[in-house]
Parts: sequence; C-alpha cells; structure tokens
Amino acid sequence: MEKIESLCKRRGFVFPGSEIYGGLSNSWDYGSYGVQLKKNITDHWWKFFVERRDDMVGLDAAIIMNPKTWESSGHLANFSDPLIECKECNHRSRADQIPGIDVKMKEGGLGLSYSISLEAKCPNCGKSNFSEPSIFNLMMETGIGPVHLGGLYFNAGMFENSGEKDKKREVILKINKAAVYLRPETAQAIFVDFPNIISSTRKKLPFGVAQIGKSFRNEITPGNFIFRTREFEQMEIEYFFNPKKDDWNKLFDELKLSMEEWMVSVGISKEKVHAVEIPDGERAHYSKRTIDFEFEYPFGQKELFGLAYRGNYDLSQHQEFSGKDMSYFDSETNEKVIPHVIEPSLGVDRGLLAILLYSYQEEELGEGDVRIVLKLKPTIAPVQVAVFPLLKNKPELVAKAREIYDALKMEWRAEFDDNGNVGKRYRRQDEIGTPYCITVDFDSLEDGAVTVRDRDTMAQERVKIADLKAYLLDNLNK
Amino acid sequence: MEKIESLCKRRGFVFPGSEIYGGLSNSWDYGSYGVQLKKNITDHWWKFFVERRDDMVGLDAAIIMNPKTWESSGHLANFSDPLIECKECNHRSRADQIPGIDVKMKEGGLGLSYSISLEAKCPNCGKSNFSEPSIFNLMMETGIGPVHLGGLYFNAGMFENSGEKDKKREVILKINKAAVYLRPETAQAIFVDFPNIISSTRKKLPFGVAQIGKSFRNEITPGNFIFRTREFEQMEIEYFFNPKKDDWNKLFDELKLSMEEWMVSVGISKEKVHAVEIPDGERAHYSKRTIDFEFEYPFGQKELFGLAYRGNYDLSQHQEFSGKDMSYFDSETNEKVIPHVIEPSLGVDRGLLAILLYSYQEEELGEGDVRIVLKLKPTIAPVQVAVFPLLKNKPELVAKAREIYDALKMEWRAEFDDNGNVGKRYRRQDEIGTPYCITVDFDSLEDGAVTVRDRDTMAQERVKIADLKAYLLDNLNK
Repeated sequence: MEKIESLCKRRGFVFPGSEIYGGLSNSWDYGSYGVQLKKNITDHWWKFFVERRDDMVGLDAAIIMNPKTWESSGHLANFSDPLIECKECNHRSRADQIPGIDVKMKEGGLGLSYSISLEAKCPNCGKSNFSEPSIFNLMMETGIGPVHLGGLYFNAGMFENSGEKDKKREVILKINKAAVYLRPETAQAIFVDFPNIISSTRKKLPFGVAQIGKSFRNEITPGNFIFRTREFEQMEIEYFFNPKKDDWNKLFDELKLSMEEWMVSVGISKEKVHAVEIPDGERAHYSKRTIDFEFEYPFGQKELFGLAYRGNYDLSQHQEFSGKDMSYFDSETNEKVIPHVIEPSLGVDRGLLAILLYSYQEEELGEGDVRIVLKLKPTIAPVQVAVFPLLKNKPELVAKAREIYDALKMEWRAEFDDNGNVGKRYRRQDEIGTPYCITVDFDSLEDGAVTVRDRDTMAQERVKIADLKAYLLDNLNK
Repeated sequence: MEKIESLCKRRGFVFPGSEIYGGLSNSWDYGSYGVQLKKNITDHWWKFFVERRDDMVGLDAAIIMNPKTWESSGHLANFSDPLIECKECNHRSRADQIPGIDVKMKEGGLGLSYSISLEAKCPNCGKSNFSEPSIFNLMMETGIGPVHLGGLYFNAGMFENSGEKDKKREVILKINKAAVYLRPETAQAIFVDFPNIISSTRKKLPFGVAQIGKSFRNEITPGNFIFRTREFEQMEIEYFFNPKKDDWNKLFDELKLSMEEWMVSVGISKEKVHAVEIPDGERAHYSKRTIDFEFEYPFGQKELFGLAYRGNYDLSQHQEFSGKDMSYFDSETNEKVIPHVIEPSLGVDRGLLAILLYSYQEEELGEGDVRIVLKLKPTIAPVQVAVFPLLKNKPELVAKAREIYDALKMEWRAEFDDNGNVGKRYRRQDEIGTPYCITVDFDSLEDGAVTVRDRDTMAQERVKIADLKAYLLDNLNK
C-alpha cells in the first residue's frame, strides 16, 4: 500500500489535496495520469452500460437536491454512525469499530443502546474513559440563499473604521431556514427524477438509469488512501422492472454477470474479488437479495461494488412524501405499477485503487535490478503509446518522432518524451502503465522503421512507420 | 428561450431538479440526451486541449479544499455581492442590479459605500423602502468532522421516549471550528497543486494545466435557465509561462485562437460571439489583458467564456500565505521564477445553452407544417445515428435493423427506435439533433440496402448495408 501511495505521488496519479496548507483530512487530488486513468474508467463504464445498451439511459442530476428527498429516503433520520469521544484525549472514534463497545441504533434513528466493557480502549491514547456515544449524521450540510447559518453575511457598516482584520471572518448566526445537504449518494436523484425520465425517454420496462457523479459523506474515520474519503465519485444504476412480468432473479443474475464482465474488462481479476451474499436479517428490510463484491485490499477484504434488489421501497417513499404519482403505466397490461429496482453501485475511487493494486508488479530483472510496472489494460491506460527520439539533441530524430507522435495522438492517448536515456524512459512509462513505446533512431531515417517495445514482455520489434497504426489497432484493442 | 426550455424538458435534455418536491431554486438536472450532450462537449474539450496537446496536463482536485486557500485567493474577503432587502415585501435583490441604487465595495471587502435614489424600486413589489445594503459572500459553507455548526449531532439519550418526531431534526448549535467551503471556482486548485504538478510531470514552461469540475456559488439571483445556477460546471486552464523568456502577447493570442477554433468545432458560430476587451481600470489590478467572450443570448449579450492574463498574482499569494516555495526552476537559465499565467475559462452549462440556442431552428415545410431541428455538430450530437425498422410488428425487419444497430453502436452513439410511423421518428430525431437516420424496409431484405436520411437536407439516399460504416465515417467526421 505504501508503495502504491508513493508511486501515485511520484508519477502524479494521486497526491494529497491542499498539501501546501497541510492538506485537509484525507482529501486527495488526481494529478495528470490519475485524472486520465479515472476518466478512462468512467468513460469505459459509460460506454459499456449506457451508450452500447439499448435498455439504459443516463442522468446527471444536481448534487444539492430539495432536502425533502433525504426525509423520504430515510437519510436524515438514519444515515448515521455511532460516535464516541475519549474523555482523556478528546479523540473521536466510531463506537462500533472499538472492540469491547457494543452499540446498536434503535429503530428510526431515535437513539442508541450500548454497553462499554472495561476492555474497550481509545485507539489514540489507550485509556478507557469514554463519553456516552452519540448518533452522528453523515450528511454534509450547507445553505442556499442569504439566511444560511454560519454564512458570511455582513452588515454594510459593520467594519467601517474598525481596522480589525479578524472581524472580517466573524459570523452572524442566524437560524438556518434553508439547510440543504450535499447528496450522500447519487441514486436518490434517479428515483426523484423518475417521472421526468419516463415522460422524456418513453422507455419501456425493464430499463436502467445510470449516473456518474460525486457524493459526500462526513465520515468520522476516513482513511486508507482513496478507499474512504469524505468526497467520492460513484457510478450507480437503478434498473427498473415490472415485478408482475419480469423475473427479478434472472435480471439480478444478468446484472451480476454484466458487472463481472466489466470488472474483467478494466483489469480487476476475478480471483481477487469475492461476491459475498448478504444473509437474511442483515439486509435492508426491503431487499430480497444483496451482494457485496469485496476486493482483497492490503488492509483487508473490503467492499468494492454492490448489487442490491431494493423492491419498490424508494419510489414508494417518494410517492408518499411528495404526493406525486411515481408509477409507470404499462400499456400492454393497461395497469399502473410502481416498478421494482435492482441497483448495481460502483465506487470510482475504490475501483481505481483496486485496479492500481492489481496491476502493480515488481519484477526482478537480475543483478538486483527491479522493474516496477503497472500492467493496466490498454483501454484504460493513461498513455497508450509513447514516442521517443533516441537522442534529444538530434533535430532530424526529434522531427521524425514528432511527426509520428502528431499522427498517433489523433487516435490514441500518446505522449512525446525526449528526457534522459531510452532505458530510463522505458522504466518511467512502465511505472505509468504505457503498453507500447516507440523509438526513432538513426536507422529509422534510412529504413522507415521504428523500434516498438512491449511493456509486458519487454520484447522489442522493428515495425515500418507506415504499418504503425495497423500494429497499434491490433494490439491496443486486445 | 421558452421554446428551448420546453424542448429540453420534452426531450429530456434538461428538466427542473427535485421537481416532485417543488424543485429547488433554479436547480436543473440533465436528462438522457442532456447528460450525453454535456459529456460530448467536455470530452471534446478534453481531447482538444489536453489529450492532443503536448503542452497541457490534466488535474481533478477535490471540491472541498483547505479553507486557507480562500484566504490567500481573496475569496473569503472579496467574493461577494451587495445584497439589499425590501422592507415592504422582504424580497432580496442584488443592489447593483437595481437602477437608482449606486453601490461600491470598499477596498478589501471591508464595507460598502452607497446611495439610493427615489427612483429605485423593488423588482418584486415596486415600492421604494429598502434596508441598508449588505455584503453577501458567495461561497457556500459546509463543515467536516463532528463539530460542524448546524450538523445533525445528537446525544444518544436525547430522544428516548420523547416520541416527538420533529425533535429528530432539532439542531445542536456549536461553534463551527471546521468550516470549509465548496470551491467557487476550479482554478485555485491548479495553483495550490502547482508544486506537485511540476514534480510529478516534469513539464517545462510554458505549459498548461486543465481541469473540468463543479463549482458552487450562493448566487443571490440565479436565473435564465441553466445560465446562472448555484452549482455549475467549469472547464478551466492555467497556462504557465516564464515572463522573462516567453512573450505573453503571443501566448495570449495563441490561446485566444485555440478557444475560437474550439468554439467553431462544437458549433458556436463566431457571428454570435463577441470578444470584448476589458478596458484599463475595469480589469483586476494584476491583469494586463482580459477578454470576455460574450454570446447573444435571448436575455442579452452575456459572458460565455473568459480569457485573462493574471500575472503571478495567484502563485505569489499562495506562496505568501503557505510559506511554501511556489516557484519553478528553469534549468536553462539556472534561475527560479514564479510563473505568470493566462487563464482560459469556460462555463459548461452556459456553453451548452449557447450551443442549443444556436443550433435550434424552426423550418417552415409548407402548409403550416413546421419542423424543429437541432443542427448540432455530429461530434457532439447525443445520438449520431438512429436505426429504424419500417414497421415494429414485422420480425424480419426488426431483426435486420437490430443487427445493423448492434454493429453501429460499437463505433458511434446509436439509437434503436421502432415507435410510431417513420415520419414521426424523423421529427423526433430532428429535435434531438441526430445527423442520420437509417430505415430498414422490405426492399432491404432483397437488395441489402437501407434508406439513409440526412437531418439537415432531409434528403434520402439508398446505401448498401456493407457500405454503411464507410458512409458514416465520411459524413460524421466532417
């Protein structure tokens, strides 16, 4: 894990957010290769599940929704973690993650029942002197309009002639009449927008609605690099069907298969992923079947993706709270029905982390030489082909390499690199997972051919410049 | 404008967010074709400015940054609008937008000077009885960690046996020690991350850093459909250069040209866009040149994109506030330099709106028949080719059309449609801007050819199924 974090920072995949200001509690920024890798993953998902499927449509809803959404969905009442504070060092922890503390949320989020044994120790100072546990809602609140509590809302005359710089940040407390929340999941917008989706797309059941976007959770203990962060990206689908006509078991299995196919296509090996069936009694009350796809992370086997049959719980809740009709009219049976859904849900950041972990390899090349290589699938590699002139101070080599680079970049993600010796450039491209490197040498000027080097085998072969596009087309689409 | 809004809702480009709950003050969701159009625009921008340029790299930073960022950038002190309230009807307005009110921010955001004439009228009730104007900061605040003011933070025993449902939402006020802000622009992250960007990419000046992402502004008066919203998407570049070596005028003109080329390539005609030079005295003090690209919207000529020379103001501020070295080491001159920047900044939502407005046409076809057509560029059209069986109840036609659809969807954004008569399907595809429609009829089963209909000319021609890919390749890449 440390090796991945170090590679990510060194090569600009992921580095700490706001680092010059000491960072901000486990926030991460995607650098040059990271943003491209992330974009390739989400683009591939979108193509696979939306553009190439006739039974899926897309959505991109606002992050800030009407707060009634979260009353209906139950997030305002129940989307909470139990929080406990150490009276010795004031360290806050999730109570359910400390051995020796037994804590249970009461129905409806109205309270906690708990017991704290003498073995329970603060993970920070090791002492056993805890506060009463509290319920901590994970939604992040903000305000819109001028009445936001804590907003910077100054009276015009307030600081005239005061000269006190600090006063600028003083806050006028007002009752927050316009509290809104940053969405804790993308899924609810799909339900809330369901009437507009069916009227505008005229899709017939069964069909799915897909969305990619950021969600926010005020996690008490974010951590493990980009695995758990307060701000994260999701790819979610709600697959709607008519429970009277469609067989949910069959749809569930089909979606499971699609998810598995997709995972393989982006290079997450099946052998590291375990489909864990959530047993009766542990699933949400409305769910008939839920699977967690867990990945073997270095810090344990943890949830990567999820697949859940949610019945018609969400649409029914929104119908009840909004008073609007959330049903679908089936023109064949002449009946109204509130569709049921199956929800495939994927975390982009933890998916990207799994891909990096799985593709990271250290290869002994003999004599103590170790090669670090990311064996990324060519479809998602940030750079698909790198083009080098053998030497940077030979204008004829540079010109020829530029010419090749300029032609290739129109069809693939290409990079031009003339920095350092070719061996070093290979190693650098290995570390960012570039499948092919092309070197223009003095022979190229004579024979119109270049050396193509394969990332995985390190084999080099001579390819005619005229055949390069065909060569890459063959090899990059494998 | 009303026609565009109506088309957007009807065809699922854009509809009101959270509509079943009465919406949320000018928030909008992108539906099926809207999200695809938006994705095509941002993808095209990314390809044009990042993937295909050797002098640009990408970034995707967290939305929530360390709040010191906004002290350094000046947003905490100065990013404000003057707000005025009508004492008669309590309607709030931006004071500077009411004729008859003259209001000026004092240096450093420390107060306002103002005068209100008798002509000034409340835009809501028409009366002239105003409060003193206030400064209203546009940044949206939230909190991380358990001490957030206004966060839902309950004591465990608090609601036991109380039975009061409302109490669930009662808020414990605490002083907000962990106030953070949703970024009001994407640009600052590029400056804050500059040291990590140069160390990981090893780019040499001049080069640019590009980012696409959401920003948030607590606008007092959002409006004009998706033109001004509280939550919006930006595409920003900071182009860094060495002021001692590079000619800023030349770089500025090159970037201006690239922006104009890009606009034309997505179908925003030059004739509707006006490059307005911001004169001396109206630019920010650190800017030597700023251009606003203004589009002729139906509600007036308003800013679409911007291009600004910002000197080294931002990097210098962050160096001063963080105490970290923000300079670049030029290995040729052996000198440290704080790079200067030129900032091309584009709003995705207002760009998309301009594209819709420009491509929307109503064509009289005679006898009172009017055709609505979106003349979108094929590169960004949500659907590039639609495939129809002439009749939906003829399995042999449906099967052949499906076969063609399945082959085309691997290379283009394709849609299968068998709903209603072919004439209606054409009109529907016209409204979403699909360049080509392909119809499989009974002759197709005999002659292996289909009818291809052109959106713009409405001309139909017979094309062999075997030649379809070549035909589309030729025509869609024009």
